[in-house]
Amino acid sequence: MNLGVDVGGTFVKLGIIDDDGKVVNRQKISTLTSEGSDAIIQSIIESIELLLINSGLNISDIKGIGIGFPGTTDQGNGMVVCAPNIFWENVEVVSRIKTHFGLPVHIGQDSRAAAWAEYLFGAGKGFDYIAGITLGTGLGCGMVFKGSIYNGGFNTAGEFGHQIVEVDGNRCNCGGKGCLEVYAGGPALLKSGLQIPDIEVLVGKLINEITVLDIFLLAKQGNPGALACTEKYVKYLGIGLVNLINLNSLELISISGGISNAPDELLFNPLVKFIKERAYPLASEKVKVVKSTLGDDAPLIGASMLYLSNK
Amino acid sequence: MNLGVDVGGTFVKLGIIDDDGKVVNRQKISTLTSEGSDAIIQSIIESIELLLINSGLNISDIKGIGIGFPGTTDQGNGMVVCAPNIFWENVEVVSRIKTHFGLPVHIGQDSRAAAWAEYLFGAGKGFDYIAGITLGTGLGCGMVFKGSIYNGGFNTAGEFGHQIVEVDGNRCNCGGKGCLEVYAGGPALLKSGLQIPDIEVLVGKLINEITVLDIFLLAKQGNPGALACTEKYVKYLGIGLVNLINLNSLELISISGGISNAPDELLFNPLVKFIKERAYPLASEKVKVVKSTLGDDAPLIGASMLYLSNK
Repeated sequence: MNLGVDVGGTFVKLGIIDDDGKVVNRQKISTLTSEGSDAIIQSIIESIELLLINSGLNISDIKGIGIGFPGTTDQGNGMVVCAPNIFWENVEVVSRIKTHFGLPVHIGQDSRAAAWAEYLFGAGKGFDYIAGITLGTGLGCGMVFKGSIYNGGFNTAGEFGHQIVEVDGNRCNCGGKGCLEVYAGGPALLKSGLQIPDIEVLVGKLINEITVLDIFLLAKQGNPGALACTEKYVKYLGIGLVNLINLNSLELISISGGISNAPDELLFNPLVKFIKERAYPLASEKVKVVKSTLGDDAPLIGASMLYLSNK
Repeated sequence: MNLGVDVGGTFVKLGIIDDDGKVVNRQKISTLTSEGSDAIIQSIIESIELLLINSGLNISDIKGIGIGFPGTTDQGNGMVVCAPNIFWENVEVVSRIKTHFGLPVHIGQDSRAAAWAEYLFGAGKGFDYIAGITLGTGLGCGMVFKGSIYNGGFNTAGEFGHQIVEVDGNRCNCGGKGCLEVYAGGPALLKSGLQIPDIEVLVGKLINEITVLDIFLLAKQGNPGALACTEKYVKYLGIGLVNLINLNSLELISISGGISNAPDELLFNPLVKFIKERAYPLASEKVKVVKSTLGDDAPLIGASMLYLSNK
């Protein structure tokens, strides 16, 4: 059995995962973001112990522990370099958990763990060059090349949302300008959707309850304003994917995240059409763009299997 | 000794290269583009024989032959899939040259061979994640990750010039729209430069003799029109490099090609400044962007060493 941990800005998910990538038991706790890294690490340790007890397992039944973080990790030194959502910077994590349990502990970025899971057990099985993209507030991206997670030289690979798609574009949280995330992040789509006249009446919700998926559903009903919003979103996302495909010659892109549940005719179908039309010919004919098969569990499953990536 | 061949649209360069990457003898013939692939392959075979004689070498002194092509190659099947400059499509080349000489023959894309040479003997020595960019009519790009040339799933990796940088941009030769090459290819810079009023008088050349470097030299003299052209060029090239760095977390980018000889204060200095300002923080601080040390010989040297890349 393997133990996976997926640390997010709101919740920490933990799971016992068998060698076939199946989650056999799971647990979820709040992320103690305001209490600092020590408190979070301590709560992870305690939750692991509880999960083992609840699962009727001993620590000796577990091969190793893998933890995914929403940020840049340094696998080699067992550190989280920078994870803005949980306010971590240069936090040593592997040695502390390893010391406690006496087991191998591996860490990695959550997006890369998700791509790794898709490669091992999901949509990417059987492919040698894949990317996993998570559509949400930000744009997560992990890549797996020839059986290894691709981290790059500075562990910053896959900053997909921070490719520049507008030369003199709007400011991004990263400090840059014109980044893809500014145009194809969830908040960008929601912001433009909320400007549709009578949006509350059209959706039947208060303005602060309206979600990105509501804008997609409104577009599905043929609302021209909503259609303009989703079409713009798909176009920018398409550009980001074309660039990724043209630079890295990927065989398969697996898409997950809340927004991936939008109606196919408004998201996947036009996205695939855009890529066929705009990507480099020899790649555009062959590349597969599909929905993730592991969904929200991908980061958890992938984290538990980080020990299998030889990089 | 190793034998390298660099097939270009105008010339085929051949060289005897020692194990330290030094070109010990060389030869150059015209590319018989209009006579078809058979004629070109035959002329390569004859030129190799002549080069060996001129170098006082026997075929038994050569470990292997490596050939770089300006297009997409399929290393595994020994074929050139598509090389528009020489009008080749699906040409089997390895088996024919191998049969003739009885030696191992390796092929690859010229840009990747160039990056490989920089990795082995040039600017990229000692780095694990590099790209070699060639600035010319098009924008060549080869990447080397962890001691292997990166070809990707469809052998189309590094189509750097065909990333989309303008959402609804101008048509590109590749069939796409808004590609980087449309804005940061040599012809784009030249075209805008030739529109500077009195350009012939300013440069002191007839319009059809003016080159991209002339526009850079005019900008160096402070001509505002020329400065606007080179600044626009650098900005688009900078966007392309930022995207490559953000997606692939490269440690070093080596830049070659005719335009890389432009004055540093107008090309390298503003390019490095742009990358420091716009690339993802953790990478922008550390990435090195330098001039190629092997220059025009890089594709030839890299071709001769293709057998060392295990992919």
